[in-house]
Amino acid sequence: MANSDTLEREQGRAFLPKFDANGLLTAVACHADSREVLMLAFMDDEALTRTRETGLAHFHSRSRGKLWCKGETSGHFLRVEDILVDCDQDALVLMVRPEGPACHTGAPSCFYRRLDGDVLVTVKD
Amino acid sequence: MANSDTLEREQGRAFLPKFDANGLLTAVACHADSREVLMLAFMDDEALTRTRETGLAHFHSRSRGKLWCKGETSGHFLRVEDILVDCDQDALVLMVRPEGPACHTGAPSCFYRRLDGDVLVTVKD
Repeated sequence: MANSDTLEREQGRAFLPKFDANGLLTAVACHADSREVLMLAFMDDEALTRTRETGLAHFHSRSRGKLWCKGETSGHFLRVEDILVDCDQDALVLMVRPEGPACHTGAPSCFYRRLDGDVLVTVKD
Repeated sequence: MANSDTLEREQGRAFLPKFDANGLLTAVACHADSREVLMLAFMDDEALTRTRETGLAHFHSRSRGKLWCKGETSGHFLRVEDILVDCDQDALVLMVRPEGPACHTGAPSCFYRRLDGDVLVTVKD
């Protein structure tokens, strides 16, 4: 039973990002060409604003409790080409062009392992 | 300064899913063929266990506070072909074959809009 607020949020043109009780929404960075998921992180209002202003993906570190520009130490920035918004506006997909490995381990994507039965195995390209 | 626990978590074969303070991790469902993100939701230990047991994506509804099998009312199940695990094991990518629209709005993906300046526009296929 969608009310008018829900309809506006799901079908409207207004960007109404919905932050959770901790002031965060989820952002999934995907490669603009392959569409593969590269990494997942969280954004508060500040990180979202900085991302939109600079075109570089910014997140909010839950462990460090502060704004974080992906690549600020490694130089492996994620250049944001497009921001997709989900139905209830509490999750974003960032279509990005990475300037290096997206994962701090040096892997192109953070999702470099798959579950095989009960153990993890490295994904083959 | 990675310690041995971090190394095991990031490089090891042991599946050590890391749930947050609310007992949740993030799951991104992607289409097994196109690799496009279809939807994003959260899993607790029960949802993850049920997903692995049944091969159908289960989540934990934060708003309703309970287990939820995607498709249980619509019939639009997500058949899980593969589960990818990220570096610190607090996020999963489910590679799925959807049995209908992934979004409750009827859209194939929940991410059917993109940000164009300050407004949302529908993504063209």
